[in-house]
Amino acid sequence: MESPASYHMSPDEFRRAGYALIDWIAAYRQRAESLPVLSQVRPGEIRAALPPRPPLEGESFDAMLADVEGIILPGITHWQSPNFYAFFPGNSSGPAILGDLLSAGLGVQGMLWLTSPACTELETHLMDWLVDMMGLPAKFLSTGAGGGVIEDSASSATLCALLAGRERASAYGVNQRGGTGRLIAYGSTQTHSSLDKAVKIAGMGVENLRKVEVDANFAMRPEALAAQIAADRAAGLTPAFACATVGTTSSNAMDPLPAIAAICREQGIWLHVDAAMSGSATVCPEFRWVIDGLEGVDSYSFNPHKWLFTNFDCTAFFVADRKALIETLSILPEYLRNEATKSGAVIDYRDWQIPLGRRFRALKLWFVIRHYGIEGLRHHIRQHVALAREFAAWVRADDRFELVAPVPLNLVCFRFRGSDADNQGILDRLNASGDLYLTHTRLNEQLVLRLCIGQTYTERRHVARAWQRIQQEANGSR
Amino acid sequence: MESPASYHMSPDEFRRAGYALIDWIAAYRQRAESLPVLSQVRPGEIRAALPPRPPLEGESFDAMLADVEGIILPGITHWQSPNFYAFFPGNSSGPAILGDLLSAGLGVQGMLWLTSPACTELETHLMDWLVDMMGLPAKFLSTGAGGGVIEDSASSATLCALLAGRERASAYGVNQRGGTGRLIAYGSTQTHSSLDKAVKIAGMGVENLRKVEVDANFAMRPEALAAQIAADRAAGLTPAFACATVGTTSSNAMDPLPAIAAICREQGIWLHVDAAMSGSATVCPEFRWVIDGLEGVDSYSFNPHKWLFTNFDCTAFFVADRKALIETLSILPEYLRNEATKSGAVIDYRDWQIPLGRRFRALKLWFVIRHYGIEGLRHHIRQHVALAREFAAWVRADDRFELVAPVPLNLVCFRFRGSDADNQGILDRLNASGDLYLTHTRLNEQLVLRLCIGQTYTERRHVARAWQRIQQEANGSR
Repeated sequence: MESPASYHMSPDEFRRAGYALIDWIAAYRQRAESLPVLSQVRPGEIRAALPPRPPLEGESFDAMLADVEGIILPGITHWQSPNFYAFFPGNSSGPAILGDLLSAGLGVQGMLWLTSPACTELETHLMDWLVDMMGLPAKFLSTGAGGGVIEDSASSATLCALLAGRERASAYGVNQRGGTGRLIAYGSTQTHSSLDKAVKIAGMGVENLRKVEVDANFAMRPEALAAQIAADRAAGLTPAFACATVGTTSSNAMDPLPAIAAICREQGIWLHVDAAMSGSATVCPEFRWVIDGLEGVDSYSFNPHKWLFTNFDCTAFFVADRKALIETLSILPEYLRNEATKSGAVIDYRDWQIPLGRRFRALKLWFVIRHYGIEGLRHHIRQHVALAREFAAWVRADDRFELVAPVPLNLVCFRFRGSDADNQGILDRLNASGDLYLTHTRLNEQLVLRLCIGQTYTERRHVARAWQRIQQEANGSR
Repeated sequence: MESPASYHMSPDEFRRAGYALIDWIAAYRQRAESLPVLSQVRPGEIRAALPPRPPLEGESFDAMLADVEGIILPGITHWQSPNFYAFFPGNSSGPAILGDLLSAGLGVQGMLWLTSPACTELETHLMDWLVDMMGLPAKFLSTGAGGGVIEDSASSATLCALLAGRERASAYGVNQRGGTGRLIAYGSTQTHSSLDKAVKIAGMGVENLRKVEVDANFAMRPEALAAQIAADRAAGLTPAFACATVGTTSSNAMDPLPAIAAICREQGIWLHVDAAMSGSATVCPEFRWVIDGLEGVDSYSFNPHKWLFTNFDCTAFFVADRKALIETLSILPEYLRNEATKSGAVIDYRDWQIPLGRRFRALKLWFVIRHYGIEGLRHHIRQHVALAREFAAWVRADDRFELVAPVPLNLVCFRFRGSDADNQGILDRLNASGDLYLTHTRLNEQLVLRLCIGQTYTERRHVARAWQRIQQEANGSR
């Protein structure tokens, strides 16, 4: 009955191909700096280079690697180039890549404790390590009533927090009976768009999302939040959830957590804090002021996959009361029942997230923390912040430019003192040159350039060159 | 200002550590067969072996790899062992592992076309390849009004489909104004629990999820579905979404798609088909009968990460009308605006999924299809099905046992003709032995053993040995 033929890759083939790919990656990360940062291909160009139909017979790994070089690479926007200053960093590192490789090699499903106890326990342990090394409140430790989990993204963390807040405010009634369109969520005008998306997904309706106004530094105004909550209560609505931000996406603004937390606690509103990029900075004691007031919040997330040298996806999400989260997301069909779960002695992380399945994501974070040590992580975060400050000083010293927002950490928002079209022109020419990649936002109704420093290999020479290129293109605008 | 010190892993270090890890993985996959399949550790045992606090100074990669061997490995339940027959396969392969490694090495964010065009275009291209090689309806091709995307899991695909159906039924009103508790979703009593979870997340309420009864083979009864829809309409409720299953989790039952699709089309209900595990079988023409009727549905998903040799996470999700999905999930803040998006000439996959960020997951599927070729994939799928049928024949030939459900593909549901306690005893002893791992379900109010064949390296000798061990433990029950 059984055919002797096997199409699997043999261990020897795997080793040979694996070494070749390791070499390719090592070389790629060295030459990334010399490649145009923003991919220069036109829509459809990559697809046109691919065969229209899948192969009937297998091909060699060498053929695939050749196509990676010839077809895929031109279509890559190089997030791992030291000249990448766009959006936010998606930095990574050698140990993180190897941790991801090990996760793929083990190939386990971490949906239940039972389906690989090490996958769950290492994750819980690392989240407790993060509480320690990032200076987070003890209430987020798994040894108490709280705990941490790795989510795929800050978007998903915000959604999970929103769902927990929705259920707490409705006495777990929305899960049972569906939404009423009368639960209210709060962010600021600067809160990340993932809150809008989460409010839609959760069936709360974007009309029930209040975008509270911000101050001159783009931080949420607590008195405006309080007034909005009072108005909603007066209208017979139920305030359920608020999201404060430590480092907004547009301008790295810091919402005042102590005042917001006091309001939310008094009002019984679930307060989530999104520190997607900036949260990594708290590995340095001198930057922990950004999370002052975190003792008063219900949940918190930051992304080691942005600025802590750990490959996407790795969002650290903490809750003060894990029971509220689990009661919101738990399901337990017969085919997942088991003694360990029944005993209550273990964590089943499927009840802490949207999907059921989960990869062994803790390995890469474990490798990163162990490779760098806390001191190594601090060194590089400090270096990025110092570079951003130096860049801001250069901008300040050139009267053709202006800073548009404070520079608390690693993001510089600035503009050429000209029209939006001038700034758009500078941006487009820089990005088209391939020398660097930066993106924009709008603040005070003006187009603003964002330079975000956090890529693993960005050094002073890269930032100096970026400033030189920006000045050159500005000369072209005069 | 700049310190000369760097804590990064050098290219040479990366190469050395990378080779060592490739070797470790190659060896692991060969010896996995000899390790106890179900981890034998007790709750807390892994954590107790880890240092209570994170290291201040960096450590060597050798130290980490030693801890992987000494601490992590005993806590692994070996999904890549050929003796793994539990839940569903989470199979993987050499090319898939290497594809995941390349994804980690490139470290790109695929949220927008612009942020790495190759990440988007290869994914779209592969989804079109899958339509071709899996025999799916042409309406799922991206070249028409539909298209495919890689989601992290079938749970997330079901959620995305549910949200699109929710919005279509409410004229995009739930996104705007929030839920009303009056939209109804339909599954069967055998539908995967991710539908319950999705209904909760979407704010529709589990009381508004109808679990339609099934026939003697555990497949949804279309006439019962029609009657339930009529009753809901009569009560003034709005039927919005239905989920049919190709291969239920408990028993691999096949819902009758043509009849269900006819009802849903007539009623204007979004019909999603979840073929999580079984969908991989349609790479073989002789198994395509399981998706007869797929022309009439709105969306479809199956998991190459279950049974198509591709590492988790890789769920292929197809919609007939991509506009409905995008309108449901789209957000476009200023900082994500760009010319390519504005032109409408490109796909931005962030609008096809729950999170914003996304990894380059297409690489591993690309490597798998190219390494095996369609013929190689067919060979191994056929072998698994043949082994399941042979196992079923052994069960049928032993009058101490009975089959409890048909065996259309690779899952055998059977029981020892004794009490539930007898069957639980057999299950517990087998799993505690480490020789194999299988799980259970309940059908017809009886405890049933499930043996699911789909792990990459499972061969006839493993299945024969499993049956021998089951017979031995059954002897112990007499």
